[in-house]
Order: sequence, then structure tokens, then C-alpha cells
Amino acid sequence: MNTTAWGRQPFVECVPELVAAARGDLKASLVIRNVRLVNVISGEILPGMSIAARGARIVYVGRDVSHTIGEETKIIDAGGKYAAPGLLDGHCHIESTQMTATEFARAVLPLGTTGGFFDAHEISNVLGLDGLRFMLEEARSTPLAAYMQVASCVPSTHPGLETTGAFIGPEEVAEALSWGDDMIGLGEVMNFPGVVYGDDKMIGEIQATLAAGKMADGHFTWKSDDWRLPVYAASGVNGDHECVTAEDVIERVRLGMYAKMRQGSAWHDVAATIKAHTEGGLDTRRMMLVTDDRSSESLKNEGHMNFVVRHAIAQGVKPVTAFQMATINTAERFGLSRDIGAIIPGAYADIILLDGNLADVNVTMTIAAGQVVAENGRMAIDWERYELPASAFNTVKLNRELTADDFAIAAPVAEGKAAARAIEVVENHVETIERHVQVNVKNGIALPDPGEDLCKMAVFERHGKGGGHALGLVKGIGFAKRAAIAMTVAHDSHNLTVIGNDDKLMAQAGNRVAEMQGGVVMLTEDGMTEFPLAVGGIMSDEPFETVASRSEAISQALLQAGCPLNNAFMTLSLLALVVIPEIRLSDKGLVRISAEGIDIVPLFV
Amino acid sequence: MNTTAWGRQPFVECVPELVAAARGDLKASLVIRNVRLVNVISGEILPGMSIAARGARIVYVGRDVSHTIGEETKIIDAGGKYAAPGLLDGHCHIESTQMTATEFARAVLPLGTTGGFFDAHEISNVLGLDGLRFMLEEARSTPLAAYMQVASCVPSTHPGLETTGAFIGPEEVAEALSWGDDMIGLGEVMNFPGVVYGDDKMIGEIQATLAAGKMADGHFTWKSDDWRLPVYAASGVNGDHECVTAEDVIERVRLGMYAKMRQGSAWHDVAATIKAHTEGGLDTRRMMLVTDDRSSESLKNEGHMNFVVRHAIAQGVKPVTAFQMATINTAERFGLSRDIGAIIPGAYADIILLDGNLADVNVTMTIAAGQVVAENGRMAIDWERYELPASAFNTVKLNRELTADDFAIAAPVAEGKAAARAIEVVENHVETIERHVQVNVKNGIALPDPGEDLCKMAVFERHGKGGGHALGLVKGIGFAKRAAIAMTVAHDSHNLTVIGNDDKLMAQAGNRVAEMQGGVVMLTEDGMTEFPLAVGGIMSDEPFETVASRSEAISQALLQAGCPLNNAFMTLSLLALVVIPEIRLSDKGLVRISAEGIDIVPLFV
Repeated sequence: MNTTAWGRQPFVECVPELVAAARGDLKASLVIRNVRLVNVISGEILPGMSIAARGARIVYVGRDVSHTIGEETKIIDAGGKYAAPGLLDGHCHIESTQMTATEFARAVLPLGTTGGFFDAHEISNVLGLDGLRFMLEEARSTPLAAYMQVASCVPSTHPGLETTGAFIGPEEVAEALSWGDDMIGLGEVMNFPGVVYGDDKMIGEIQATLAAGKMADGHFTWKSDDWRLPVYAASGVNGDHECVTAEDVIERVRLGMYAKMRQGSAWHDVAATIKAHTEGGLDTRRMMLVTDDRSSESLKNEGHMNFVVRHAIAQGVKPVTAFQMATINTAERFGLSRDIGAIIPGAYADIILLDGNLADVNVTMTIAAGQVVAENGRMAIDWERYELPASAFNTVKLNRELTADDFAIAAPVAEGKAAARAIEVVENHVETIERHVQVNVKNGIALPDPGEDLCKMAVFERHGKGGGHALGLVKGIGFAKRAAIAMTVAHDSHNLTVIGNDDKLMAQAGNRVAEMQGGVVMLTEDGMTEFPLAVGGIMSDEPFETVASRSEAISQALLQAGCPLNNAFMTLSLLALVVIPEIRLSDKGLVRISAEGIDIVPLFV
Repeated sequence: MNTTAWGRQPFVECVPELVAAARGDLKASLVIRNVRLVNVISGEILPGMSIAARGARIVYVGRDVSHTIGEETKIIDAGGKYAAPGLLDGHCHIESTQMTATEFARAVLPLGTTGGFFDAHEISNVLGLDGLRFMLEEARSTPLAAYMQVASCVPSTHPGLETTGAFIGPEEVAEALSWGDDMIGLGEVMNFPGVVYGDDKMIGEIQATLAAGKMADGHFTWKSDDWRLPVYAASGVNGDHECVTAEDVIERVRLGMYAKMRQGSAWHDVAATIKAHTEGGLDTRRMMLVTDDRSSESLKNEGHMNFVVRHAIAQGVKPVTAFQMATINTAERFGLSRDIGAIIPGAYADIILLDGNLADVNVTMTIAAGQVVAENGRMAIDWERYELPASAFNTVKLNRELTADDFAIAAPVAEGKAAARAIEVVENHVETIERHVQVNVKNGIALPDPGEDLCKMAVFERHGKGGGHALGLVKGIGFAKRAAIAMTVAHDSHNLTVIGNDDKLMAQAGNRVAEMQGGVVMLTEDGMTEFPLAVGGIMSDEPFETVASRSEAISQALLQAGCPLNNAFMTLSLLALVVIPEIRLSDKGLVRISAEGIDIVPLFV
């Protein structure tokens, strides 16, 4: 932590002051009296407790803290409310909210999230370490205990499968991890086949991470009973959020990995995965709750980690256990339990007060780094905003106008039918299904079939690296009229992706996105809905409230065009992610992810 | 770990080989088939599992490891026996066994202990960092995963209260912690009043430890509801074995400390402390089982951590939970769970096989660093012995002959009775009681009273620092005839200590110990029993079997003289330890340890 603005100095430097304040020779800056303490270490709820903090850290926890109170001490009488450690998101891509770190902080602090582990691999795919650096610096300017990971997979697999704006290898990993203690480790190692089969780049990145004394996170999407999961575990990767079943959790924990149970906006894995404990009786110490990706709309309408913890409790987990999964377990996973994840002497004063039943996770006050930062759902403070560098903008280098012809799919026959691979969307899940469909062909051109809910998809390289593109088919979008959506949010390489059933509309939408220098455009004959994303083409530089309302407008437009999917935009934005089964489209072509590996396959069977 | 002889190389260096061996491209050196795996991370017992290791580390754990087997692979069919991680002792003074690290390893490996956290503060009080260094180097020469702590308290409090052979301060701590990854942290910080009240030396040592990224262990003997326990916790000290009640455990864990429950030879704390979980329902993740001090006799007759785990289970703890307390919890406490404490890919192949009921902890085979080191209670291998440096010997610098006059206690009255403070021994506990007694005085000299079970005690400085001495009274020894015991094992400064009821015998015993250059001498009119301890005056350079038999001879001699105490010698060796309540004798005088602090008090009230 280098966020000295918030007093988040290393523990070692604070020892004399902490001890002096704990014994009362220096006075507390903040005292919270009369709380029901959610003690996530002992697993107890303790009534009648009080907490004293000085600066950013807790100095004393006990029944009586009166000796720590001086004339300047701010005193909060909690009136018996619950006090829990601020919630931690153990795996999160800030970019998925389409917000900058500042606005992300403003969105989640009132919801009780005081810290997180952020894998900025979206911006890193666009801008490399420069992007990571400004995300880190911006995050440091917020009250959050923000820990960043350096992306392991830029590109997510290798340049033959997709084109990114940057490259990160072992040297870049080592460099990024030298930037500070808050550079906490290696982001999700998505090229898990590369690890298992000894790819030099992947093994080198893991070694660079371990040599820096830091942690490597995983992403393994073969089945959990695949014989290669233990091989992956042997590499030193020991955390993984790609758990979609209880077995996925169980197998990972048995191998010593931390299993991160995800409740993203569009990937609802907790109800299934939590059964590893509620039905399987698994020790919960290495089970964590995370969000991975949540949209600004989800933050506004459902919440962040408060929502996830509440949801876990609703599945039958004991409240204190669910809090552990979002606090101390997460802190321990990253070796940070001295600083975060518990209300104990010496830790950062990242504390939430909760009203009513603990199971409701009703956060009424958020204290971060010893300051009351939010109250009753609203930010209570402001701070000087981080100024983004010029390099963050104007990153869409398409360098040409798209035309309807760019979307023509050449078929292997001149007329009639052709068997093709379509990407089928699965609502609320990250996986896709490879579906074989018969497409109509006219004059050698394959045509989408609205009656079969079959759209075209196109991915255009947009990083100024040649501008190639590939075409594919998508099933399950639901468009009931002529429509196209274009976007530069397309995990992980964030090339310009267009999905639709009308070549002209697709070209028009794509061109508009390029003109805006990034964002999302939803287009039908009834009109155009725009969501500009000026920062790297994936984030807005506008406030949370504006972002959420623009994001909602896109959702509405999708719905009006007939797309019924929950968090449709986020679901669509993953259709280019070539590391999650079964099938995706990149600028290089159709990519199949199977137990055999990750390979380009032809569109036509 | 630098014990390259045993292949304990840093994980980071092993990654490529681990992954290649896990997928079967390199072959395993050892495979154990068909075990019931005690999975201490998931909290499960898993039948039908197999384990593959290559060199010192586990490469694969699963139902089928056949792909790892090559022509050179040694295969063990476990026939359904339990396989658990090798047991870890989370707080142990090797010197308390009176054995060198080599013989300690030979004693405990057949019992299933494969690693430990050793606070060599006994030898450090005699020889400073030189003593620690040879203990470290000798420990590295054994198959154990041996982690050493640098003593925080040399002297245990300050030179005004006792005289030691050496001094360790913040600079020495920093130096020792730079010797390697196996220098794991700061040993028990016994000067807890110093920490609480901001003593520069103590705070400096803690900061030196945290700055090195390592852990500080504690020792807090005020009551657990003392308001200053949270102050101690605020210093960064976050492990403590001075728990004698369930409340001691509960209060520490609530403050984020690891509570170490001790079952030493003469301190039987587990039955009481484990109730924090069995009755109090405390989360067990920060509860550990440790030995602190066990004699060679105890190792021979009862066992080591195998005995402690069995005892914990007998108190009603679930077997897998008890194993966690001696494996993964300990590993996590020191940030080492990638290397030790669990049977997972990548960890050291420190594995025990157990027969019969798991609750019996019947260890039949010990594998350390991937090698079968013990079988059926006996060592199965040998190795080149570490040669102790010359500085380890000839450390008793008494520089004069003791006479009976040295033991004469001058009373404040000439004749009659005088009220004096006696140290009362408490069997099987580290604490003593301050008892006020009336002693007979004749010619101005106080006389011990065998009828009142009152002995004299003398402590002579023996490090060549002036040779001062002090006299006191001890109650509860039980000598039924004229007897004296003299020893240079006298925690922690290990001055020459003599206890008895006859001045001449006391002088004679003391002189013999000095002549032997350290050890224990038990003397009655029937004869003398000797236990030479040539290494620093506290350890023998003889084999485990010899040490245990000499130690037993001392016990027998004490018993024959009427002393009924369990592990009497160990109990007596703590009567000079000025950091545990209520009252002790050092070479500087009678020392009282109370909630007010640690101070010298007069012998006569």
C-alpha cells in the first residue's frame, strides 16, 4: 500500500504509534462504541464491544476503550449495530463495471466493500503495463485497500489466436510486481493448458511471481475431475474462480487451492458452488466469495459484495461463515491478514456497521482507513480526483470505414444449406455451447436466420495491428427485429465486436463505436443508443450514476430488440474470450476450447 | 530452507520440474499407493488416494498416479493406511530435550514429526548468535523441515534482573533473520511488559522482524482479561503459547493471534485450553498444538507431537481437526502452507502413514523430503553428522570453588523466626506461587525446614561476568532426606542453579557440575547421579538413547530422594525463569512477576 493520502502505511512503520495508542498514551482518532462485533477469526458474534482507531489503523478492540479517548477523538455510538470487517472482493475486474477506479470506489464503498484484488487485465490487453500503472495509481488515490494483480495472459493465450494491443511476459510481470506491496500477484492464469504443458512464458511468469514472494491466481476451465488439475496445482497457482459446480470447489480445495465462488452480474455460480460446504461439509477456510465481473447496473440495483454475502447466506451458510468468505479467507489467501479482513488491533480500520439481521447484510456505514466514507448508502466524503493520462484515450485504431460487405460470410457452397458452427449463449453462465446449425446460402453467402435465432458476429482488430477480422454465428441472442450491437468491450483483447442480423446496421454501429473512440452502440431501425467508453475503449470517464444509466439504456435497447438475456451486454462481451469453453470468436477466427486444448476451427463443418 | 542435502530447495526454483513430473514427462522418485488421505485443507478423509513425489516435493495427488511411475520409481503400497502430513511442532525449544538438533531429529522423526519451529533461545542466552548459528546449521543437516527463530529475549527481561552469557537486540535480530528463509521469525517475546510500555529494544526487535517480512511470536502471562493483551496484540506479535485456560485461547484468537496449546513434559495445558473449541465452539483455524519443552524421557516414553495430537483427540476434538492443529494451522501461521502442513502438489513430501484408528495416531512410517526416514518406530536412514564448533563447549566460567558458606542465608533477625517469600512449585504447570513462610533463624542464619518441605535455592552467574549469586527458598520439592541438585540448565540464562537442604551437598553438587563443564548432578549421602551436558552446559553431545537414559537416572534419583513431581528436573529448571508468574530466583535475587511488572523483591517480608 502506498496510498499515503489515506494513511495506509506499512504495518512495520506504525508499530510504536500503534502500541502507544493502544495503551492510551496517544489518543484514538475514532472510537466506535457498543457494537456487536462480527469476529471472523474466532467465528463469533460478540456483543458490547468497542473499537478504537488512530489514523488508518485499529489500535484497540475490547469491552472498554475509554482509555484511548482524547479531546480530538470522534466517537460513534453504534447502539448495538453489528460491526464487521469491510468486505473484500477476492477477484474482480474493475473494467467490467465500465468505470474508472475512482468511480468504482464511489460505487462500492457505500455497499460495504473496502478492499479488493483487482486483475486489470482488460486495460492491460489494450495498453499493457501503462494501463495497469494508471489503474494502480488511480486505485491508490481512493480510500479502498486496493491490491492489483499483473495480468498473466496478455494475450489470453497466444498471438495466433487473437490480437491484443500489448504483450506481457515474465519480464513485465517482474517489473510490475516491483511497483509496491499493493502489486499483490499474478492475475488469473487463463492459459492453463500452457501451464500444464510447460509453456515457457507461463512458467516464467509464475516463477517471476513466486520469486517476488507473491501469489498466482488461476483459471482452469477443464472439468474438475480432469487428471490435469493437480498438474496445474503443482505449478504454484493456488487460487481459482472458475468454479461452477460444488465439485469444482471441492477438487480445488483438496489440492490446496483457494476456491473463489463467483457471483458476477451474468455468472451466477454461488448457489451451486456453495454446496461444497452446505451439502459436502467442506472446511470453508479456502472458500471465498468474489464477483469477477459486475456491471454498473448490477452495482446500482443489486449491490456488490454485500449482495454476494447475502446471497450466500440465503443458500444456507451461517452468516459468520459467509462473512469469513468475504473477509478473512480472502485476506489470508493473499497473506494480508495482518492488514485487512478482520477487526483486530493493528489492522486497517476498514469497518462496516450493519442494521437489522446480520443475514440481511444491510450496510449503514462504511469506515475505510479510519474515516467514515459512506453512510446510509451514500458517499460521505470526497477527494481530489486522479487525472488520467492522455495515453488512456484514443485507443481505437481501426483506420478504416466498415461497410456491409465486411460482414458477408463466404459459404463453402453456392446455394442451399451449409453446416456451420454457432456459438450458443448460456444465460447467467460464462460457458458457451458449440452448436452445429444449417445455414441458408445464397450466391455463396451464408445468411443469418432470425427464425432460428441466429445472428452474425464479427471481430475487427482495433489496436492498429493490421485490422484483420473474422466472422462467425451466434445463437440465443433473441433479436426479434433488425438489430446490431457493436462494442470495444470484448474480453480480453477488446477488439471491435459487432453482433447483429443486418449487415448495414452492423457496419453503421461499428463505425459509430470507432468514431466515439470506444464504447457500445445498440442500433435498430428505431434508433441508436450510445454508451461511450473513452478510456481504453472499455471504461467511461463519467461518474458512476451516469455510467449506470447509460449501461441501463443499452440493456433496455437490447431488451426492446428482443434480447431476453440477463445482463445481456456483459454476456455478449465475453463471446470473444478464447479461454472459456466451448467456442468463441476472435479477430483470428472461430476458437474452440476443449480438453484437447485451444485451437482455431473452421466456421463450416 | 537451505538444506540442499535433503533437496529442500525453494518452491520457485522447482516449478518447471514439478509441472513436468506432475504430468508424467519426468518420473516420480516415490509413489505411495492406496492411502486414506487425511486432507487437512478440505477437512476430509479420502480413501483410495495415491501420492507421487519427485525429490523432496509432492508432484501429484489423486486416485490414479500411474502416469508418474517410471523404472526408477520406488512404490509403496500403503494398503489403505492413513496418510497424513508430517506433524509440525509450532513452538519448541530443542535444548529442552538436552539433545542436539541431530539427536532431536533422530528422536522425533520415528514419532511422525517432520518439521518444527524452534526458538533456540536457551543456547542463545549462553552463546548469543554463535549458538543460534550452529543450531541452525545442525538443524539444516537433518531431514527435518526445521525453521529457527531468533531469540527476542536475551536476556529475558533486562540485565538488572538476571545475567546472561550474551545479548541480542534489534541489530542482532535483523542479522539472524538474513541468514535464510528458514530463519522464520522472532522467538517468543517474553518481555511483554516491555512491549506494552514501549521499550525501545523490544519494539525495535519486532520492527526488525516485520521489516524482514517475518513473524513475531509472543509470551504473555498476565491474565487474558488484562486490558493490556490488546496492546500486546497491536504490536504485531501474533502467536502465543502461554495459554493455560480456555479463556486464554479465546481472548488471543479474538485478537487475531494464533493460540498455541502446549503439552510439554511438565506443562499440561491442552486439556484445559482445548475447551475453547470443544466447549466454546471457537473456530479452530488459529488454534495450534505445540510442545514448548519436552524432555528426552518424555519423547521416549510418551512421544512428541503424535502424543499431543492423540491427547487432543482424547479431549473430544475431531481427529481431522486435531491434525489440522498440528499441520496446516501451524504452516499457515508462519506463511508456509505452500511448503509444509498438507499433502498437496508442490509441498514437501513430508508424510506419515498411520495404522489402525486415526485417533490412535499410530505412526508406522515417516517420509521426510521424499525419503522414507523412519519405519515402525525406528530410524531407517543415517546421514553425515554435523560437527559442533569448539565454541559450543567449555562454557561454564564459574572461576571458583563453591563452599557451604556460599549457601548461608543471612536473616534480618538473629534468632527465632523470620517471614520469608518462598517459591512454591506447581506440578505440571509453568506457574509458581509466592508463598509466605516462617523460617527458623539461628545465629542470624535462616535454616531450611525439611518438615515444612522447604529447600534452599541458589543461582550462581556462570558466564564469566562477575560470578555473583543469590539465594532463595523453594517449597514443594519433597526431599525426604539430605539432598541437593545442581544444574546449568536453568531457563533462560542458564546460570548454575543449586537446590537442596544441605549446604555441603549443595556446594559439592555445584562444584561437580562446574567441573563437568555443565550438566545436572543429583547428590544425596547415598551417592551421586550425573548427567553431563557439554554443549553450552545445556545439551548433551551423546545419542538420544544415552541422553534419555541419563535423564531417567536423574528422575529416579530425584524420586528416591523424595521428590514426587512429574518431570521434576524440567520443573526445577524453570525456577529461574523470570518472565512467568509469580516468583523466581535469578543470580540477581528474587524476582516477582505480577500485573504491575517484573521486579526484584527482598527474600524476607
